[in-house]
Amino acid sequence: MDAIQQLDSDTAREIAAFAFELGVLKRETRKGWIDACVPSPESVADHTCRTAQLAALIAAYEGGDPARAAHLAVWHDSQETRLRDLNQVAKPFLGKPDHQAVTATQTSALPQILATLLRDTVAEFEAQATTEAVCARDADRLECLIQALEYQAAGNTLMSEWITSSKDRLKTTTAHRIAEAAMTTSVLKWRTTMG
Amino acid sequence: MDAIQQLDSDTAREIAAFAFELGVLKRETRKGWIDACVPSPESVADHTCRTAQLAALIAAYEGGDPARAAHLAVWHDSQETRLRDLNQVAKPFLGKPDHQAVTATQTSALPQILATLLRDTVAEFEAQATTEAVCARDADRLECLIQALEYQAAGNTLMSEWITSSKDRLKTTTAHRIAEAAMTTSVLKWRTTMG
Amino acid sequence: MDAIQQLDSDTAREIAAFAFELGVLKRETRKGWIDACVPSPESVADHTCRTAQLAALIAAYEGGDPARAAHLAVWHDSQETRLRDLNQVAKPFLGKPDHQAVTATQTSALPQILATLLRDTVAEFEAQATTEAVCARDADRLECLIQALEYQAAGNTLMSEWITSSKDRLKTTTAHRIAEAAMTTSVLKWRTTMG
Amino acid sequence: MDAIQQLDSDTAREIAAFAFELGVLKRETRKGWIDACVPSPESVADHTCRTAQLAALIAAYEGGDPARAAHLAVWHDSQETRLRDLNQVAKPFLGKPDHQAVTATQTSALPQILATLLRDTVAEFEAQATTEAVCARDADRLECLIQALEYQAAGNTLMSEWITSSKDRLKTTTAHRIAEAAMTTSVLKWRTTMG
Amino acid sequence: MDAIQQLDSDTAREIAAFAFELGVLKRETRKGWIDACVPSPESVADHTCRTAQLAALIAAYEGGDPARAAHLAVWHDSQETRLRDLNQVAKPFLGKPDHQAVTATQTSALPQILATLLRDTVAEFEAQATTEAVCARDADRLECLIQALEYQAAGNTLMSEWITSSKDRLKTTTAHRIAEAAMTTSVLKWRTTMG
Amino acid sequence: MDAIQQLDSDTAREIAAFAFELGVLKRETRKGWIDACVPSPESVADHTCRTAQLAALIAAYEGGDPARAAHLAVWHDSQETRLRDLNQVAKPFLGKPDHQAVTATQTSALPQILATLLRDTVAEFEAQATTEAVCARDADRLECLIQALEYQAAGNTLMSEWITSSKDRLKTTTAHRIAEAAMTTSVLKWRTTMG
Repeated sequence: MDAIQQLDSDTAREIAAFAFELGVLKRETRKGWIDACVPSPESVADHTCRTAQLAALIAAYEGGDPARAAHLAVWHDSQETRLRDLNQVAKPFLGKPDHQAVTATQTSALPQILATLLRDTVAEFEAQATTEAVCARDADRLECLIQALEYQAAGNTLMSEWITSSKDRLKTTTAHRIAEAAMTTSVLKWRTTMG
Repeated sequence: MDAIQQLDSDTAREIAAFAFELGVLKRETRKGWIDACVPSPESVADHTCRTAQLAALIAAYEGGDPARAAHLAVWHDSQETRLRDLNQVAKPFLGKPDHQAVTATQTSALPQILATLLRDTVAEFEAQATTEAVCARDADRLECLIQALEYQAAGNTLMSEWITSSKDRLKTTTAHRIAEAAMTTSVLKWRTTMG
Repeated sequence: MDAIQQLDSDTAREIAAFAFELGVLKRETRKGWIDACVPSPESVADHTCRTAQLAALIAAYEGGDPARAAHLAVWHDSQETRLRDLNQVAKPFLGKPDHQAVTATQTSALPQILATLLRDTVAEFEAQATTEAVCARDADRLECLIQALEYQAAGNTLMSEWITSSKDRLKTTTAHRIAEAAMTTSVLKWRTTMG
Repeated sequence: MDAIQQLDSDTAREIAAFAFELGVLKRETRKGWIDACVPSPESVADHTCRTAQLAALIAAYEGGDPARAAHLAVWHDSQETRLRDLNQVAKPFLGKPDHQAVTATQTSALPQILATLLRDTVAEFEAQATTEAVCARDADRLECLIQALEYQAAGNTLMSEWITSSKDRLKTTTAHRIAEAAMTTSVLKWRTTMG
Repeated sequence: MDAIQQLDSDTAREIAAFAFELGVLKRETRKGWIDACVPSPESVADHTCRTAQLAALIAAYEGGDPARAAHLAVWHDSQETRLRDLNQVAKPFLGKPDHQAVTATQTSALPQILATLLRDTVAEFEAQATTEAVCARDADRLECLIQALEYQAAGNTLMSEWITSSKDRLKTTTAHRIAEAAMTTSVLKWRTTMG
Repeated sequence: MDAIQQLDSDTAREIAAFAFELGVLKRETRKGWIDACVPSPESVADHTCRTAQLAALIAAYEGGDPARAAHLAVWHDSQETRLRDLNQVAKPFLGKPDHQAVTATQTSALPQILATLLRDTVAEFEAQATTEAVCARDADRLECLIQALEYQAAGNTLMSEWITSSKDRLKTTTAHRIAEAAMTTSVLKWRTTMG
């Protein structure tokens, strides 16, 4: 297969710079877990990975396109290279950041095809008007809930706030049922699934 | 929106168990970096996140569907919950593991719609017969190269093996050009992109 | 000695809550180092400790009160329990946060004597109108420079930006001379100081 | 403002070497937590930061000078660059180390003004004869207790020894009341203080 | 004392390469703990160290040679530089790896005296036909149980599987009694042993 | 096989307590690496594991008993549960600790057979009068040198002090040759040994 348009070296360099920017997501830790005294908390990228996986599963069940839901999830926190993972305690002082403005800046030096792709993807996620967008956001929250259950199994006693608030904000029946089931399923159950 | 079929609680529990299984990807470290003495190496999920992001970008340029390429990437290492991140030094003793067999086991208790989705996705990635599959695999390798460049910038002197072998296995022009550009781009360049 | 006023249990609880809030500084990592791919970066509290120590040393040399300079340093990043350690890349999207507003909120439930102490301390640091405030800010920057030199000794190749920008913003002759000396002093020299 | 005396480059280098020595406090972990199986325990500098903050708060309430109490706290463990954070189990074999002797060695190459400052500060803390010294030591113990409560909230079941022994050694009413309050206050309470 | 045969530089280099290979054991984390959400899990070398210590103690009690038992333990996981620390969930896909084949490869470039030593040692451990081999394997399991108790004391709620399965596989009376005693002994008891 | 003497439950409990004490070695980090700004430094147990392995290899070449040399190495730092890993900078203040006194205390509640075993083992290592003791100490130093080379490959620029001082103190020809070879061997060479 051939590229639609050959990348010139300046453009390639801008894409490479953006790839390095995305690397921040692998090193930035999620802030709620820091508040909750979790040792060595997960990265934003860790969270994004399972969010995308869950988005596909939820969308498949909700009649959406799994790949499109996963793709929305893949970019849903990509603004955090610049904004970092702020949470509720920052809001009174920093306001609600404009994710689309960040995406616009991040993609300002990218070729048009990529800038448009990412801006449209982020806009769709933020608008929450498609099945896939709703499934991706539910996946975001379900992932947080499941991670909280894992930290709880690891001993943390402060997780109920995250479990409850994640669960309460779920929109789809599918995510809601998985959440309820997760709360009574052992973290180690999968090890006995030997197919 | 409504779920195609309502999840019963046993099925929901199996999906929850699978979600916990996917959590292993967030905690399993990539083995090449352990060989190379990298402190606190990234997780498989960290790698998967940027791989999916790069898969979308490469596919957009190569005329593929970005969402489908990202989705293939999202699941491309999902077998490593069981196989762990084995590398070349294990091969003479463990053989080449059958990823589709692992996926079959992992999904054996999932509802049909999800089992089929994941088996088809993994099969498409393994077959490498679609543009999206080729872009996802190139993203896998490009991500490794970019991570190696980051570890090199962090001081590691052993990265050339990973940089070279990742680059040599790239198939698409787009990935190849980004790889070449990355090798001469500062890891910090993005911080000056202020749009 | 006796307390000026006995703490009632509600007030004591608010102080305890504030003490837990300050614990976030021990777990929040400094963001510049995350951008620069530093593994296991220092916490805000780590930075604060040496900043306070350096503030005392600089102030002693600059004719200020070492204890007061150290005290200003001790609180100089205390807003980061809520704002986190944001850096230049966040500024276009979040603006320059109002540190005194954060302190006001943090201390809103504390007894008057403590609220006034902290608000005055933060205001003095922000105003930069006293010798001690200038020394404390110089200590903040000198500490960053010295940490960057340590990470550079540990292998990191991206530190020049932090070394240069920290040095360029120093105001006192004392801090400037220490900075210059640090750049040509071994990180291990102290081990041979056997007094 | 001008420095009392201009630093010559040899002196500046000795101060820089001492600054690097203080960096050890950021990397040395507290030993009690290692005994208690705490993952990724805090550094001595982490402990020092909140100790200084608490020292100021306690001193303000106890009628002392907050800045002076904080300053005493800032240096109270500075000997641990050489002695490390030894605890009770080492005592039968290593004796009680002489902190002032360590400070004398650490400052032996520093200019007189700094050597005197640090020796006097450490001597005041060790003598425990001023309100500020008592408040600083109480802050040291209260900080340990609060950290133990945080580790307990994070799951650790072995913290009662540290909580009890820290509490039993508190001298001031203020610290004692905060300690008692902390034991029944949620680690997350501060997140609801929105001022 | 003199070496039996002087090492030529090529042979010395092969031994050095093998020493670097053994370094992987210090960086590879144990997989069961990853499944169980343990933060910052121990390395294979960490496990090996206490296994060797326990092997000596058990063997002394069981009438074996403590040094020989410790030596068997020292090498019992040395194949994991290549195989990594696989566990039960990998078995259906990777089979039971042949440890002696791995040792044969690892030692293929070593001088005969060393290759024979290591092959015989691994073969003796695998055959489980000597008192020392039985004690070393019991030490392997007892170490796992004791580590699980430590993680449980640190808060982890998922340890019963490891505690039970380790205990059930113990062969010697000595190991069994220590295991039972450990289950009701505080992790901190040793700190009161002041001899 | 049967135990020489059946363990009563009090004795078993003392052995279990000692096993928990040995766990400290898995969590205590080596101090030189902290001075040298190494991120996430190895544990004492990590060091002990490869030391024991190298002791066996060196002894085999030097005409000693590999198992006995490994066994000496296994216990050579076991005092550090109480003394921690002190280094040269602590010596002027803490003196040279008496390792045999620590071992005596550690084993004071153990059954005679174990107490004697450990005291004799530590005494033999300290006396340095047997081939095995010399090989074990050389392994201790060679391990340090090889670890320093690994940290150097990972980027650290401060390792020459550890490399040189370790090398200069080696006694056996075998260890000396391996050390020299290691200095010009790639950390990754073993990955190409495919037997």
